[in-house]
Amino acid sequence: MRAEIVSVGTELLLGQIIDTNAAYLANVLSEIGISVYRRVTVGDNMDRLVAALRQALDDSDIVLTIGGLGPTMDDITRDGLAAAFDDKLVRDEAIAERLDRFFTSRNMPVLESNLRQAMVPTDGRSISNPHGTAPGLLFEKNGKIGIALPGPPNEFIPMTDNEVAPYLRQKTGNVGTIRSLVLRIAGVGESMVEDRVKDLMMDANPTVAPYAKVGEVHLRVTARANTAEEADALIAERAAMVRERLSEAIYAENDDPLEKAVVTLLKEKGRTVATAESCTGGLIAQRITDVAGSSAVFHRGFVAYSNDAKVEMFSELEAILRDHGAVSREVAEGLARGARSWNGDDYGIGVTGIAGPDGGTAEKPVGLVYIAVAYAGGCDVEKANFIGSRQVVRTRSAQTALNMLRLRILKG
Amino acid sequence: MRAEIVSVGTELLLGQIIDTNAAYLANVLSEIGISVYRRVTVGDNMDRLVAALRQALDDSDIVLTIGGLGPTMDDITRDGLAAAFDDKLVRDEAIAERLDRFFTSRNMPVLESNLRQAMVPTDGRSISNPHGTAPGLLFEKNGKIGIALPGPPNEFIPMTDNEVAPYLRQKTGNVGTIRSLVLRIAGVGESMVEDRVKDLMMDANPTVAPYAKVGEVHLRVTARANTAEEADALIAERAAMVRERLSEAIYAENDDPLEKAVVTLLKEKGRTVATAESCTGGLIAQRITDVAGSSAVFHRGFVAYSNDAKVEMFSELEAILRDHGAVSREVAEGLARGARSWNGDDYGIGVTGIAGPDGGTAEKPVGLVYIAVAYAGGCDVEKANFIGSRQVVRTRSAQTALNMLRLRILKG
Repeated sequence: MRAEIVSVGTELLLGQIIDTNAAYLANVLSEIGISVYRRVTVGDNMDRLVAALRQALDDSDIVLTIGGLGPTMDDITRDGLAAAFDDKLVRDEAIAERLDRFFTSRNMPVLESNLRQAMVPTDGRSISNPHGTAPGLLFEKNGKIGIALPGPPNEFIPMTDNEVAPYLRQKTGNVGTIRSLVLRIAGVGESMVEDRVKDLMMDANPTVAPYAKVGEVHLRVTARANTAEEADALIAERAAMVRERLSEAIYAENDDPLEKAVVTLLKEKGRTVATAESCTGGLIAQRITDVAGSSAVFHRGFVAYSNDAKVEMFSELEAILRDHGAVSREVAEGLARGARSWNGDDYGIGVTGIAGPDGGTAEKPVGLVYIAVAYAGGCDVEKANFIGSRQVVRTRSAQTALNMLRLRILKG
Repeated sequence: MRAEIVSVGTELLLGQIIDTNAAYLANVLSEIGISVYRRVTVGDNMDRLVAALRQALDDSDIVLTIGGLGPTMDDITRDGLAAAFDDKLVRDEAIAERLDRFFTSRNMPVLESNLRQAMVPTDGRSISNPHGTAPGLLFEKNGKIGIALPGPPNEFIPMTDNEVAPYLRQKTGNVGTIRSLVLRIAGVGESMVEDRVKDLMMDANPTVAPYAKVGEVHLRVTARANTAEEADALIAERAAMVRERLSEAIYAENDDPLEKAVVTLLKEKGRTVATAESCTGGLIAQRITDVAGSSAVFHRGFVAYSNDAKVEMFSELEAILRDHGAVSREVAEGLARGARSWNGDDYGIGVTGIAGPDGGTAEKPVGLVYIAVAYAGGCDVEKANFIGSRQVVRTRSAQTALNMLRLRILKG
């Protein structure tokens, strides 16, 4: 079964609000095993709405609309769907009475426009909405299904979860499920990831697709099967193949960010880390402490932004700064070692560089960053030339530091 | 002129990511006076993409695509647009050389797939992308325009603002314009803001609408007029009325976050600030140093996450911690004063609290945060009970600290 989502509203078309409902609905449909063919957004314009709905009914079995069910003149979805389905709306007296009670009990006049919300399809029915006055609508005609959902998320989400999803599950016999797993990868670029799994990307089921993020790559494995168990088995087998090829570059599955993987690993090993940051300015400490329970593995961090601050906090940096300058391998190492030895943490992270947009020179351009991880047996240092905005340079620096720490912990 | 936006990507179609780019682009088009006819989202499927593009070219003058320009096999937008425009892509040697240098200088192999990013339309040109390897593309044929934008927001937004918007402004002669101004407000809740501008919210042009964010409120003033100048005049008059009612609660206009306003204010006054953070874990330092040029006003910050770290860094806290506990007015004040006096900064920020989800008690629940700003004449301290996730508690704490500092600087 194939579905199309049609979002209705000029405010969506103009980008004044973000359409989170459509993404939510697409997710629910995928989980049921209904493939989403296309998503369309149209404004409050009857001709364009009807054209979009007719096109959707040509291409798909199910059309779901979001929004435009309210009482005002620009709420046109009800009439638009009736036109596309060649259906005639009739007044549902039970709903009309409920609306009447609703307004009367609030000492509000029952306007004729409010009673438009009592109109339901001849070939279909209303869908109850305990959280608002506008019921949803179900059209069923000539083997096609139309479902109209309200726009306010506090009405839309419960109606989707409690009414629409069960109806569609039953309608489809819940046959076919799409499940997916995201493998999160750090320290390897998108082209390189693709190069390693190119052959797997040719397969239709499960599919394997890379998505580039700032400083990491997500590899999504998606399988379609009759049951969730079968889909999960297909995914597990494919994920194992990917793991064999990318091994420890994969730092987590699904939603856990890199800092979560690092905190988990430190907890498992009973180790702690301290930070001394220059160009990242607290970003690494912030990301580590963003993880609930990080207080077990992180006790202290330093933001040594100016040269004076670096020397105050770590006096041994005075000579190093003089000899090598603030943006140097030696200062990164000094910060990492200084953070680690301040009060006996197991690891220390040090970062220094030029985040931009100003402050670069021919010799030390914007994006030049030195990142160090100190540990009992020594200190790893990497030099990077990041390209991008100040925010991108800082994010990639933090990402590299956290990944270097992760790989160092894995070494034992 | 009429435009259609086509977002490309299976991850968008399945609702795995939210399409903020399309909303951004729709906004920019409206401001130029180009009406957005429809928005469509298709997956990584060539036939469906080409069908959607052909339909869009039938209905509109301009088609803008977002995403699918990367080097991997499922990046199909380049070829899809060429098919819809009946154009042939040719290799741009200058771009190919730039890609070659990019990868070679990073000691990375230049894969054949990377060089697909050097293919440009015969009837058109590339659009420069200083923030990534994939250039944008411009197709111009038979009176229709096609524009391909990259998906990563850090590439998409600058290209839209700096390349596409000026091109379209010139193309349309910029007739009929919607302009808007956002007034950013901190320290006052949404209901209070609404209460103060209720009457202005009834007007149709300019419109005034509040949007609640975490720890702040944005008030959007939007005007429609024949020229940008006329629209701006309408906005200026309305904004002046709002300013009269909300005065110093308005910290900035448009895109500048609170930390930018704080850094600007410190620069103007020639003052500096230092931070000592417990529950925000570096978030405040990170936000301050996120502002380009912040090194003039910020030199040092401390993340004193554990009690031991607090005492190591600020020895005077030892007795205070014993007497009052870590989450107390006295510790917040001690951190702020300690940060300030470490090496003579003008202001010190101190924050301590329980970000959750664990660690709360009946007496000191999750969300209890003390925030202090120390200055030459004393120390402001606020007690807050924030409601929400760990991230929300931390964000609101940082927001409150930055706003307290802003108000303190304004006092002289």
